[in-house]
Amino acid sequence: MPIFLNTRDEDFEDRFASLLTMKREDSPDVDEAVAAIIADVRRRGDKAVIELTSKYDRLDLTPETLAYSQDEVDAAIATVPEAEAEALELAAERIRDYHARQLPEDESWTDDAGATLGWRWGPVSAAGLYVPGGLASYPSSVLMNAIPAKVAGVERLVMTAPSPGGVTNPLVLLAARISGIDTVYRLGGAQAIAALAYGTETIAPVDKITGPGNAWVAAAKRRVFGKVGIDMIAGPSEILVIADGDNDPDWIAVDLLSQAEHDESAQSILITTDAQMAKEVARAVELRLETLERREIAGASWRDYGAIITVQDLGEAAALADDIAPEHLELCVDDPEALADNIAHAGAMFLGKWTPEAIGDYIGGPNHVLPTARSARFSSGLNVLDFMKRTTMARMTPEALKAIGPAAEVLAKSESLEAHGLSVRARLDRLND
Amino acid sequence: MPIFLNTRDEDFEDRFASLLTMKREDSPDVDEAVAAIIADVRRRGDKAVIELTSKYDRLDLTPETLAYSQDEVDAAIATVPEAEAEALELAAERIRDYHARQLPEDESWTDDAGATLGWRWGPVSAAGLYVPGGLASYPSSVLMNAIPAKVAGVERLVMTAPSPGGVTNPLVLLAARISGIDTVYRLGGAQAIAALAYGTETIAPVDKITGPGNAWVAAAKRRVFGKVGIDMIAGPSEILVIADGDNDPDWIAVDLLSQAEHDESAQSILITTDAQMAKEVARAVELRLETLERREIAGASWRDYGAIITVQDLGEAAALADDIAPEHLELCVDDPEALADNIAHAGAMFLGKWTPEAIGDYIGGPNHVLPTARSARFSSGLNVLDFMKRTTMARMTPEALKAIGPAAEVLAKSESLEAHGLSVRARLDRLND
Repeated sequence: MPIFLNTRDEDFEDRFASLLTMKREDSPDVDEAVAAIIADVRRRGDKAVIELTSKYDRLDLTPETLAYSQDEVDAAIATVPEAEAEALELAAERIRDYHARQLPEDESWTDDAGATLGWRWGPVSAAGLYVPGGLASYPSSVLMNAIPAKVAGVERLVMTAPSPGGVTNPLVLLAARISGIDTVYRLGGAQAIAALAYGTETIAPVDKITGPGNAWVAAAKRRVFGKVGIDMIAGPSEILVIADGDNDPDWIAVDLLSQAEHDESAQSILITTDAQMAKEVARAVELRLETLERREIAGASWRDYGAIITVQDLGEAAALADDIAPEHLELCVDDPEALADNIAHAGAMFLGKWTPEAIGDYIGGPNHVLPTARSARFSSGLNVLDFMKRTTMARMTPEALKAIGPAAEVLAKSESLEAHGLSVRARLDRLND
Repeated sequence: MPIFLNTRDEDFEDRFASLLTMKREDSPDVDEAVAAIIADVRRRGDKAVIELTSKYDRLDLTPETLAYSQDEVDAAIATVPEAEAEALELAAERIRDYHARQLPEDESWTDDAGATLGWRWGPVSAAGLYVPGGLASYPSSVLMNAIPAKVAGVERLVMTAPSPGGVTNPLVLLAARISGIDTVYRLGGAQAIAALAYGTETIAPVDKITGPGNAWVAAAKRRVFGKVGIDMIAGPSEILVIADGDNDPDWIAVDLLSQAEHDESAQSILITTDAQMAKEVARAVELRLETLERREIAGASWRDYGAIITVQDLGEAAALADDIAPEHLELCVDDPEALADNIAHAGAMFLGKWTPEAIGDYIGGPNHVLPTARSARFSSGLNVLDFMKRTTMARMTPEALKAIGPAAEVLAKSESLEAHGLSVRARLDRLND
């Protein structure tokens, strides 16, 4: 049974607070083991990576087979059914179009003092994308991580994915090729992250690492942060659906289940203004769960973390949504734009009844790598800027330095940084000669 | 003696590589102690914070005196000399003008399929700024952290600064007031970061924490990352000056020393096309070091980590600059814009001989919180976007769903995510009824 709440209930505040702080993930503490793996890869390079892959993935590699050869990629791709290849191409095209609009502009202007100021954006030179193996090895995630990097202008883009026992997902390799990835390594875990961050004899280091992973990968990313850039550490997926009384309960039910089926730790929440809808959706979920392929996972997620909250009006719904700051937010109401205007914190919004969240997972265009665990309060989904950086620019004329330099000198002195002041003073003195 | 290199030397590659990987900072391993402090603050709130402040800062606080009162701030500010107040006001105005141009735009468009796509930017609701105590308690850093947050639209902006023994820097409080900070706490160290991230009875939690700090602060920021957003973990400061033969060696010398005086771990590097200039700058540095107030610090930095590299031409200089990816880059050459075009990686560029880096520290307008330790390869200086996040938006019409939904269904099936496909199929079936 999911949690049923009603803002009219006396204990609502407490129960809603418990929902917000519910711990859904019990990450094993692998930090020490990860530190040892990173140190080993830094020290022994390829040798360490090969040994660790043999140990954890039961796969014996050589420096020559760390990466897939072009022939191997070709052969795998040839097995992909045409319908899937076409769907992947369409998705790639739409994701590319969306992200191309995120390219930022350089600026330069001269102010009243005569100072020319501005900034310049540029891509990171090399990026590495981690793709999990097994159940969570999604071709769509390859597109979502790689395409923003290519749009940003990243020159060298590599990918690494564990291949336990040598098993490969051809769709993942096709997605890699479609999105312009240069090299795909058969590595997983902390050793893959270490190799990307520090390099080995065979693997050149990158500047930025993105992509989801298990506790080992997350701990490794946290550790190499600073040496390279990383994206957010992703938690289990979440959806919040806000629905009025004018909805098909079955549509809402499958939308909720489309998150629940990801992971037993996923969380699906419905907020509705209609007490009857609350009941009907709950029933529709149970009905769908009877036949759903992943009913064990989806059922566990819904039972343990699912919630249905009945509210008085959409104003209450918006306030709760901001507290939840959901990764995905579906607005199944008549005027979704008006409701969206009242909600500040969400990773991605899906507006109106004809926009199931799954559209955003694959084909809509926006990125599906989104902030989880309330981090939409302070972070954005993956985007082109994650693969770019801004260099600020300033140029003084003698006149500009005369106008604003003395203030810099005063502040330098107040901070007891004499040389800072002298570097201005030496130039100002020349002007007064 | 700084390191002297010449690209003509046989061992140049090796010696330059050593320069790049030189370890300048020996951070004590305080991770476990920091974890204990954070756990303590989470458990005991104000009590823990007050005890830790008594222990580490020899300052006895109560919940009522955790923050400065407005009267205390007023009294402190009244002691600031007028010239300093005016300089701070001018700096704030210029920093505000520069960062106001960084405000991003929302976008919305309808594509050929009939899908309406776009994104919306919004500020984080609450941010906290850490300001170190003692030597590194810089009013300019208050402006540089707080003003981008205010420009972004952050509603609640607080600051925390240790006040060992109760000592307060009036200029820091004035900078806080000028930049619109709501509350200033007398807290430092890991306990201040924990209080900002998790809140106590008296201190409301924030969503984003920025600002420099010692090893304890850095370790705490790393640990709370994910619960809140953080900025980069800053390392010791660096400058790279590229100079041709047509420069005053003394100007270059004071520019190099303006970084060296920050910290014994700071690094100042000169690259010059003129072997004579290399010698003259080295001499000018020694001369300035004789009288510089902070000669002990600046001398140690210059002796241990300073370097002068003679190159054949500006092309070589640009390539080396990209390898160094300096925090600050001064281009003291005739056509600095042309040289800048050839350099991809730098936190901030200062163009031409009339633009000493110190202008950027105080008054230029661009931010002085910049990526160190080669992280300019993948990250930017602090800016307005650090206090904002982007929510992506998508709205399908029935026609748009008909056009692109089937591809989503195919991909969902290929990833064995049945409910994802069903959420699209349920709607498509209605259209075919």
